[in-house]
Amino acid sequence: MRIARFSIDGNVAFGAVEGEGPAESAASGGLVLDIIKGIPYTDFELSGTKVPLSKVRLLPPVLPNKVVAIGRNYAEHAAELGHEVPDVPVAFFKPTTSVIGPGDAIEHPSFSDELHHEAELAVVIGRMCREVPRERVQDVIFGYTCANDVTARDVQRRENQWARAKGFDTSCPLGPWVETGLSLAQAGDLTVQATVNGEQRQLGRTSDMVRSIEDLVVHITEAMTLLPGDVILTGTPAGVGPLNVGDEVAVTIEGIGTLTNKVIKRG
Amino acid sequence: MRIARFSIDGNVAFGAVEGEGPAESAASGGLVLDIIKGIPYTDFELSGTKVPLSKVRLLPPVLPNKVVAIGRNYAEHAAELGHEVPDVPVAFFKPTTSVIGPGDAIEHPSFSDELHHEAELAVVIGRMCREVPRERVQDVIFGYTCANDVTARDVQRRENQWARAKGFDTSCPLGPWVETGLSLAQAGDLTVQATVNGEQRQLGRTSDMVRSIEDLVVHITEAMTLLPGDVILTGTPAGVGPLNVGDEVAVTIEGIGTLTNKVIKRG
Repeated sequence: MRIARFSIDGNVAFGAVEGEGPAESAASGGLVLDIIKGIPYTDFELSGTKVPLSKVRLLPPVLPNKVVAIGRNYAEHAAELGHEVPDVPVAFFKPTTSVIGPGDAIEHPSFSDELHHEAELAVVIGRMCREVPRERVQDVIFGYTCANDVTARDVQRRENQWARAKGFDTSCPLGPWVETGLSLAQAGDLTVQATVNGEQRQLGRTSDMVRSIEDLVVHITEAMTLLPGDVILTGTPAGVGPLNVGDEVAVTIEGIGTLTNKVIKRG
Repeated sequence: MRIARFSIDGNVAFGAVEGEGPAESAASGGLVLDIIKGIPYTDFELSGTKVPLSKVRLLPPVLPNKVVAIGRNYAEHAAELGHEVPDVPVAFFKPTTSVIGPGDAIEHPSFSDELHHEAELAVVIGRMCREVPRERVQDVIFGYTCANDVTARDVQRRENQWARAKGFDTSCPLGPWVETGLSLAQAGDLTVQATVNGEQRQLGRTSDMVRSIEDLVVHITEAMTLLPGDVILTGTPAGVGPLNVGDEVAVTIEGIGTLTNKVIKRG
């Protein structure tokens, strides 16, 4: 099932997506949202009340308490930035103030001259958990969505820790919805793609991740509690490159959908 | 004014602290909380209903959306760990799941053999803000509290980014309350002290910070929005050292108070 979060007439709700097609409102004539009663991480009901997706504004599909991201988790990407594959996963946080939804603008901040896209598979957590054993990882995952770990590459090179380089406002587009129907094995073998203005920049497969989804959930929850709605960004494949004002960047993950955002100058 | 957050009989409230003395319940016979109507970041009223502090459980004095921490902001501390003072402030996040209150237990996680205390002045933000000009910094600050940036030093050495080393559960004690009556000039010239089992380990002055509170607010908000209740940890003076199971660590900041936590084995 694909679960979106949206606003319509000032109300916010979750809905199950019915039909096939892209999420962009203009092109989503065939898509309908069946409004969910309550929040979807636990048992929920479909209300049967349906609205066309073209009539709503899609929001970030989850409201994370935290976003834990992983750097250098694809060997070719580590190499393109001149890094070794690290002995231990590189884990960092993106703040909730960086999260935006599908169609929202990525604001190019004035403190960077080199913004980069990073297309990533995002894991959405469904249950409060800590010290998750490998064989229980499937149980704590609610689903998967697309993410763009937008990075101020020049700032990242200058600053020892990446709070500003990867944590500025609008640096964490998520969406368009959460796909809940994928097994761990399926999620571990999907194409991840980024295009800029329709031109392909990144193309990889989640099967090339240095650490698997199971590895990452075990590693992160060894240290900290994850809460329902928390998000893990699993790293980006090779092909990262510049985003300039006016660009449209799209992250497409097989079996999930496409997350599209425009880059504007921060006002 | 000192503003505490507390629970009593299952209810949570903010209260203004009246009287003098330490926060520990056993020793706080003279302290009384005047319950606040609403949340204290904006205009609020004291209800006049008072409870003895000894009858309540103090909670973390704020519920941050994010905690932004600064590394290597005292030259002597940078030197004791073998680092230069960085050209740019080292900014990282501690997640909300790491925050605990006064008297709460610091859980020694099994993935570290070298837990360290780091006594720090914490700035509590009172207004949503971004790109704060230097002359407006005072306006966005709600007050100040004590923090312990508990660090798994061995993990920090091994991992390029510090999400696990400084973000594990219970690694961010805050409290005992927020002091709202300090000017920026006053906050910039306070003694910061850590004791372990009553023995002094750290002693510094906020006047020795490499970057001032103003510098840090400008630097952080250049990139990201801060929300009411967000916290900035301003770095730790020299003298960091081990915390072992059974230890009691106390952070005392002049003009604010003492934050005391025991170290237990994670269960």
